[in-house]
Amino acid sequence: MNVGGRAYRTIWVADNGETVKVIDQTRLPYEFVVAELDTVEQAVHAIQQMLVRGAPLIGATAAYGMCLAMRKDPGDENMRKAYDALASSRPTAVNLRWALDRLYHAIRTLPAPERQRKAYETASEICDQDVAICKAIGQHGIGLIRAAFAKTGGRPVNILTHCNAGWLATVDWGTALAPIYAAHDEDIPVHVWVDETRPRNQGAQLTAWELAEYGIDHTLVTDNAGGHLMQRGLVDLCIVGTDRTTAAGDVCNKIGTYLKALAARDNDVPFYVGLPSPTIDWAIRDGLEHIPIEQRDGDEVSKIRGRTEAGLDETVAIAQSRTRVRNDAFDVTPARLVSGLITERGLCEASHAGLAKLFPQAATG
Amino acid sequence: MNVGGRAYRTIWVADNGETVKVIDQTRLPYEFVVAELDTVEQAVHAIQQMLVRGAPLIGATAAYGMCLAMRKDPGDENMRKAYDALASSRPTAVNLRWALDRLYHAIRTLPAPERQRKAYETASEICDQDVAICKAIGQHGIGLIRAAFAKTGGRPVNILTHCNAGWLATVDWGTALAPIYAAHDEDIPVHVWVDETRPRNQGAQLTAWELAEYGIDHTLVTDNAGGHLMQRGLVDLCIVGTDRTTAAGDVCNKIGTYLKALAARDNDVPFYVGLPSPTIDWAIRDGLEHIPIEQRDGDEVSKIRGRTEAGLDETVAIAQSRTRVRNDAFDVTPARLVSGLITERGLCEASHAGLAKLFPQAATG
Repeated sequence: MNVGGRAYRTIWVADNGETVKVIDQTRLPYEFVVAELDTVEQAVHAIQQMLVRGAPLIGATAAYGMCLAMRKDPGDENMRKAYDALASSRPTAVNLRWALDRLYHAIRTLPAPERQRKAYETASEICDQDVAICKAIGQHGIGLIRAAFAKTGGRPVNILTHCNAGWLATVDWGTALAPIYAAHDEDIPVHVWVDETRPRNQGAQLTAWELAEYGIDHTLVTDNAGGHLMQRGLVDLCIVGTDRTTAAGDVCNKIGTYLKALAARDNDVPFYVGLPSPTIDWAIRDGLEHIPIEQRDGDEVSKIRGRTEAGLDETVAIAQSRTRVRNDAFDVTPARLVSGLITERGLCEASHAGLAKLFPQAATG
Repeated sequence: MNVGGRAYRTIWVADNGETVKVIDQTRLPYEFVVAELDTVEQAVHAIQQMLVRGAPLIGATAAYGMCLAMRKDPGDENMRKAYDALASSRPTAVNLRWALDRLYHAIRTLPAPERQRKAYETASEICDQDVAICKAIGQHGIGLIRAAFAKTGGRPVNILTHCNAGWLATVDWGTALAPIYAAHDEDIPVHVWVDETRPRNQGAQLTAWELAEYGIDHTLVTDNAGGHLMQRGLVDLCIVGTDRTTAAGDVCNKIGTYLKALAARDNDVPFYVGLPSPTIDWAIRDGLEHIPIEQRDGDEVSKIRGRTEAGLDETVAIAQSRTRVRNDAFDVTPARLVSGLITERGLCEASHAGLAKLFPQAATG
C-alpha cells in the first residue's frame, strides 16, 4: 500500500540483501517508523513485542527470522535453535508454524552453505504468495459488499471489523480489509465501524490509520458498541480476520470477536471471516478444545500508551497496581456463528465440508 | 462504605446544612477527593461531567440540585428553571426524572419560604430510601450467590460485572454489587471479573477500587474478554446494574451490557440485573424503541486519562484527531436475555408479569 505516495509492504529485505525491514507497528498511528532486523533474536523480539502482528505477517517475519539465523550460522544446530525460538515466540497463530515448517523443509536437507540463499528465496516466495492470497480474498469478498450495497438504497455499506486484519496484518492488502479496499476501488461506497480493540487498540491505532490513508470513510467505536449498532440496523456486514481456523471452521481471532459474532447472529447481520489458507489448522476441529490461547502481560490492559496534548509519547495507568489483570489475547468463535469464510479460492461455508470443497488435498492430507 | 476507616456515602449535606458534598469520581482510583456543590449549576455540571454517575446517585444529586436552587431563590420561576436544567442534564437514567418529580411535587404547592426546608427533607428521604433499597437488593440477591456456591465444589463463585453498579453508583451499597458485598459479609467466597468498561473505564477505576477497599477478590479484564471467560466455564453468574428498565423488563445499561447478556445466554450462565424500583420506567415497554440513548463526546473514546509512572495525571490520545468517533453511552438488553431482576422486594422474572407481581400498584397505575 502507499504511504506518503510511496508503495510499501509490511516486510522486505533491505538494499544490502540481508537485513530485514519491517514497519514498527507499535509507533503507529503517530509515527511511521521502519525497524531493521539483523538477527533472529531481533525477529523473535519483533514478533513478541508486536512490532509486527497479524497471523500472515507473523508467518512472514518468522520465515525471515530463519533467514537471519542462516546468515549468521547455517549449521544444523543453529537452524534447529532458530526454529525453536521462532516457533515458540507466539502460540496462537498457526501461520507462524506453517511458514517456519515450509522454510525448514526447503533448507534442512541442503548443505549448510546453500541454506542462506534458499532461505531468502523461500521467504520471498512466502511473502509473494501472501500478497497474491490477500488480493484474491479481496476479489472474492467484494461480491458480499456489492450484494449488501444492492440492498441499502444507495447509502454506503456499513461494515464492522474488529482488530486489524488489514494490510498491516499481512504482507500487503490484508484479509478482512482486502474486500473493503477492493470495493472502494470499484467505487462501491463503504463505511467501516472500527472496533477500538482493547487492550492494544489495534483498531484505533492501525485500522483507522490504514483506512484514513486509503481514503475510506470510517468511525471509531469502543468494543462495547458493536451489538448496539447492530440492534439499530447500523451494520450491514461484519468482516474479521483470523489467527487460526480449524478444519471444522471454528475461528480463533482477537479477543472479543466471539461477542460480535453473537450480536451478528442475534440481529441477522452476516458475519464473514477473511481466511488465507495458511491460517487453517487442518489437524484440529474443535477450536475451544485445541487452540492454545495466548495469555499476555496484564500491563497491556492496565497501562495505555498514547500521545499527550504536547505531542509526547506517554503511558498512563488506568488501574491501580494492586489490581490483578488477566489478558487473554484471543477467543474462539464457533463455526455455527460464522456466515461464511472468504478464502483465496472463493467463499465457503464455515465447516469441514465447506473447506474441503475448496481445499480437497489439504482436507484429506 | 468505609474509606480509610471512615464511613462515607457518595453524597451528603455539609456541616453548614446547605451545601452538598459528593465524592469526585473522576479522580478515583488515584485520589479520594470530596467536591462541594454550592449551586444548581454545579450540580448539573457534576452530573454531566460525571463527578457523580450511576442512575440512583444521579437521582439523589438532582434532588439536592433542586435544594441548592431553592436555597438561592425559592420562587416559581427559579424552581421551574432548576427543574428543567437538571432534567435535561443526562437523558437515559430515569431515576433522575423520578427524583426530580418527587421533589418537585413535594414543594411546588408550598409557599416559597417553606420550599427550601421541604426540599432538603425530601432529598434526604430519597437518599435514605436508596440506601434501604440497595441493602434489600443485597439481601435478596445473596441467595443467587449462595446457590451458585453450592455448585462450585468449594471454590469461590466467579461473578462477572460490567461498569460500576456498586456503592459509588448509588448513595450506598450499590445495586449489582450489593449481593456481592452481602455474600462476602456472610463468608461466601466470591471472585469478581471486572469489565474495564470503555470508554470511561468505570470498571477499572471504580469497581476495582471499591472491591479492593472492601477486600473482595477480583480481576480486571477488557470488555472483550467476558464471552471467552464464559466459554471456558470461568463465570458462574453475571450481575449488572441498569439505568432504566422498561415495564416489560428490557434493561438499558452501560454500553456493552447487551454483548455480555448474549454470551451468558450462549453459555447458560445466569444473567441478573440489580434493579432498584425507581429505575423502572413504567410508561414504556419496548426499550429499543423508547429509551433515549445518550451520545457523549467522542473524546471520551479517543482520549484516555490515567497516571503516568511519575504519578502525574495525564491524558493521552489513542487515535489521530482525523479519526471520527461515535460514543453511545448505553445499550438495551432485551428482557428475553435477562435471567431475572433483583429488586428491593425480591427476585422476579424480567417481564411485565414479573414486575407487576412485586409492584402491583405501580404496574397498573
